[in-house]
Amino acid sequence: MQYISLRNLKFMLHEVLDLAGLQDSERFGGFDDEAIDLSLDAARQLADQYLWPAYRKMDKEKAYYRDGEVHVLPEVREGMRALGESGWLSAAWGFEESGQQMPLTVQNAGSMIFQAANGNLAAYGFLTTGAANLIREFGSDDLKATYLPRMAAGEWQGTMALTEPQAGSSLTDITTYYERQEDGSYRVNGQKIYISGGDHTGVDNVVHLLLARQKDGPKGIKGVSLFVVPKYLPTDGGLRDNHVTTAGIYGKMGQRGYVAAHLMFGEQGPTRAFLVGGEFRGLNNMFLMMNEARIGTGMMAAGSASAAYYASLQYARERPQGRHPGNKDVNVPQVLIIEHADVRRMLLFQKAVVEGSIALLLQCSLYEDTYRLQRDERSKLLLELLTPVAKSFPSEYGNEAVSMGMQVLGGAGYTDDFPLEQLFRDIRVNSIYEGTTTIHGLDLLGRKVMMEGGKTVAYLSEEVSLDLRAAARFDRVRGVAEKLGRGFQQLEEVLRHLLGLAQREEDSRVFLADATVFLDYFGLHVIGWMWVKQATAAAVAFEEAATVGGRDMGVDEQAFYESKIRTAGFFFDYVFTRTAGFRRTLLSTNRITLTTASEYII
Amino acid sequence: MQYISLRNLKFMLHEVLDLAGLQDSERFGGFDDEAIDLSLDAARQLADQYLWPAYRKMDKEKAYYRDGEVHVLPEVREGMRALGESGWLSAAWGFEESGQQMPLTVQNAGSMIFQAANGNLAAYGFLTTGAANLIREFGSDDLKATYLPRMAAGEWQGTMALTEPQAGSSLTDITTYYERQEDGSYRVNGQKIYISGGDHTGVDNVVHLLLARQKDGPKGIKGVSLFVVPKYLPTDGGLRDNHVTTAGIYGKMGQRGYVAAHLMFGEQGPTRAFLVGGEFRGLNNMFLMMNEARIGTGMMAAGSASAAYYASLQYARERPQGRHPGNKDVNVPQVLIIEHADVRRMLLFQKAVVEGSIALLLQCSLYEDTYRLQRDERSKLLLELLTPVAKSFPSEYGNEAVSMGMQVLGGAGYTDDFPLEQLFRDIRVNSIYEGTTTIHGLDLLGRKVMMEGGKTVAYLSEEVSLDLRAAARFDRVRGVAEKLGRGFQQLEEVLRHLLGLAQREEDSRVFLADATVFLDYFGLHVIGWMWVKQATAAAVAFEEAATVGGRDMGVDEQAFYESKIRTAGFFFDYVFTRTAGFRRTLLSTNRITLTTASEYII
Repeated sequence: MQYISLRNLKFMLHEVLDLAGLQDSERFGGFDDEAIDLSLDAARQLADQYLWPAYRKMDKEKAYYRDGEVHVLPEVREGMRALGESGWLSAAWGFEESGQQMPLTVQNAGSMIFQAANGNLAAYGFLTTGAANLIREFGSDDLKATYLPRMAAGEWQGTMALTEPQAGSSLTDITTYYERQEDGSYRVNGQKIYISGGDHTGVDNVVHLLLARQKDGPKGIKGVSLFVVPKYLPTDGGLRDNHVTTAGIYGKMGQRGYVAAHLMFGEQGPTRAFLVGGEFRGLNNMFLMMNEARIGTGMMAAGSASAAYYASLQYARERPQGRHPGNKDVNVPQVLIIEHADVRRMLLFQKAVVEGSIALLLQCSLYEDTYRLQRDERSKLLLELLTPVAKSFPSEYGNEAVSMGMQVLGGAGYTDDFPLEQLFRDIRVNSIYEGTTTIHGLDLLGRKVMMEGGKTVAYLSEEVSLDLRAAARFDRVRGVAEKLGRGFQQLEEVLRHLLGLAQREEDSRVFLADATVFLDYFGLHVIGWMWVKQATAAAVAFEEAATVGGRDMGVDEQAFYESKIRTAGFFFDYVFTRTAGFRRTLLSTNRITLTTASEYII
Repeated sequence: MQYISLRNLKFMLHEVLDLAGLQDSERFGGFDDEAIDLSLDAARQLADQYLWPAYRKMDKEKAYYRDGEVHVLPEVREGMRALGESGWLSAAWGFEESGQQMPLTVQNAGSMIFQAANGNLAAYGFLTTGAANLIREFGSDDLKATYLPRMAAGEWQGTMALTEPQAGSSLTDITTYYERQEDGSYRVNGQKIYISGGDHTGVDNVVHLLLARQKDGPKGIKGVSLFVVPKYLPTDGGLRDNHVTTAGIYGKMGQRGYVAAHLMFGEQGPTRAFLVGGEFRGLNNMFLMMNEARIGTGMMAAGSASAAYYASLQYARERPQGRHPGNKDVNVPQVLIIEHADVRRMLLFQKAVVEGSIALLLQCSLYEDTYRLQRDERSKLLLELLTPVAKSFPSEYGNEAVSMGMQVLGGAGYTDDFPLEQLFRDIRVNSIYEGTTTIHGLDLLGRKVMMEGGKTVAYLSEEVSLDLRAAARFDRVRGVAEKLGRGFQQLEEVLRHLLGLAQREEDSRVFLADATVFLDYFGLHVIGWMWVKQATAAAVAFEEAATVGGRDMGVDEQAFYESKIRTAGFFFDYVFTRTAGFRRTLLSTNRITLTTASEYII
């Protein structure tokens, strides 16, 4: 069963993205092209063995809560150990931390494989790495020594414990509080809800990275600090109960193998907590993990969409049904449904979304790697600007893509005889996780495009211009490059209009009213850019093959590159065209969502 | 719990649609405005009592197959009896058939209530009425006398038995066959799959309206006839086994209380069948039921979207979260989320889809009633033209609307603590039932717009023009009317372009390649028309209230009409804008879905 294309990941890493800067560095020098390929091949093997076989089983035999414990299948424990022992959870860490100094770009390409094979299981590992990274960055040496090795081994689960009943999108309003004890230690009290991986039998301990406010301290986000709160306290004699109580897990439409728990701290006894980073810097420090989790959510969504694409593609290549319009002769056998134009539209839409999303996610990872190496403003700001898109495009368009995958199968896709229905249920939550799409719209328009006096967008324009120039050299890519170029000109006009509103109107609600629409509009340009890059890389490959003594290209390779150029064309004819409508909405002066008082929404 | 607006249904029937032609007729004269309101109020009571309480239970305690029987909850039997005893299943039938001579427009307004309350249960009844109508239209007196009373009472289930493993969209390829016996009776042999309501313990018998081909008869659709095939043969001494075997039911993502069965005929003994209508007129006759089922599928989808809208609206009015942009003062309480512009966008989108869909479904019902009375070409052709939209717009946009409803609830919407997740799973199948959206695109562009030399579209333009003229009188409606008018001009250009292709290109694949996109494009114009009509009716109401001695309008009424005008504005600013992108796709000459051979889809 195919759930992801390794060929595509390698194309991205070797031919689309420029990894030379990483590969020439001391930190990442070990990862030449060959080492990258070996890593990805190994990831695929691991995913085939531990992740993919457990995917549907984790849904059908879903996690359940009984007598204070959350039971998951033994496959979760086996998978976590496999991810840990193979070094994937800590691959990006330094040699001195027992890591492999793997570029994040390569680690995330591997994660794409795991997410496509089984997002439910991969997520346990992904979350653990994210939580461990917070401890690595801000934790004391003691915390690092105690927690990191077991988390890297996949033996202890990491979590993000943020949300509370009254505080979801608005973290400013959390009420879980901490108190410093006379001995200098901390205790926490309160409730956290929807905590992914919050408790389960697949690990020996759970390590919560938790936000709490100082009791009787400053109101709002100023009073919030970040803590490590383990389910069991590691002591010399083993693990001791830390009185973290699991009240239950949520009955979710999808991701039923990936638990979301309701937790109570300090209710049945004192719950000890360990400060991570400076006091009152909680949300700020947590953002490191939140940003990572946003890219991770994008990867989870792209992974589900990838699995759905290949499942529907296989069906379309095997299922005969109907004949071409104009040929109703029943003596002629039915054609395979991939021969129908509309089925191709649904398949190409999926391919455009999946591979466009993967490209952006790896591009973001490369900016992160580059920033870590060079501490340059450009990479940092581009990562900041693109993160809302990298989180929300794969989630929103991935939903639509999986739905089309189901539609390709017709009635069969709606039944549990095929994985489509699970993928459809699973991917839906990605538009909600780690900040809803609304929140990311506000982040993009209200913060990111204005950061550093608009330098973010200026850097993006420069990057795009370079790629448009490279594309213009090729007859078969010039057309889509021109469409993207015109699109960016219009985008800049729209942005000027919106920023004008931001200056003129006292109420910032006016300028932000359509932030979600802007996110969608902007995101299509970003993904369009990713498709121009991919089409250009394919054109380069064809050019090299046409050169005397150049690269030898077999039929499969030729089809691969051809598919890239054609899918780019599809994207601009069938998906990017949506920008025309969004532009109209964004330029409208009616402001209906602002002016329509709630009493008229009935 | 609100799941539908009765006020809106009454507004549609009394103020938007012109029912005078029906109410003045002999057949429907009993249904004056007061009688209509009484009927709808009764439907609401019945839905509150029997349907809504069973909705989530039918999902959680889903139907199951054991020892050849399909078990459903007792609520199904009670609901079917209630629908039968109250006369709803046969309300549109003549007095001589023990019906009420209710206009279909009114019956369907009632059905909207049932579908919104519980589409799973309502569907059993709806399907039974559809099957019974086929017997009424084409069956012998004997068949009518035997089957209609029990079906009307909700004691026997009706079905459409069309699909086979190798023949779904392509009914031409069915292989289930019939043979005439020496005594003149018929027997059938074969398998049918995905048969909704195909077998269950909520009824005493199941009456299949089944398509089969003559054994060794003409190939293709020419050899197909329509039969009544009961699960149990009614005899003087009671019911006798007719050897219809249930092989199992499908595990579906949603609509888990509404069974889809795999049936075998003639495997375990002879299965008797009764010819309905002339031999070899099977598909043609079945179209009566299929067209009815298409409108019914649209109603089912609109019903789910309606329930989701009101559930999310209630949540948005009760849930405080966050503060307005620019006001981060934590001493100020959080606002209700309905105060956020983007939440309003998601609510208004739902309202625009739900009420736009209901308007179109009732408009289609009115054309059907009018045609039955007058046998006029105009009503018939308009119904033909609009049916693909009435089926697919509520299904496709309803999916999106329910998804937005879930998004309004955030994480809570993804859990089974709220009905959104079930509605999201349930509504998804409506894009597949009764012809996928692809099939309806082909039906619209390949058949309906060209019927009778294009008269269908000409009639539509006339209807729209009349309504645009009526709208132009009102300052607050003129803007949206002008947008619709310009839209229709462009639509006609696009259509000329496509019909030009149909004439010039020998291969009809070229002209039909983007039929699904055209359906979406066309459908937005049709729903836009429905919104202009509704806004105009609201403006009329305001005008009457402003007249000296005119209608007295309370706060609630004022809000109701205001909501109509504002939602119309929303539709044109946020939804109709999509036409700009579809137009570009439809006018593109790249034809990527045709020219991209399947080997490049990898």
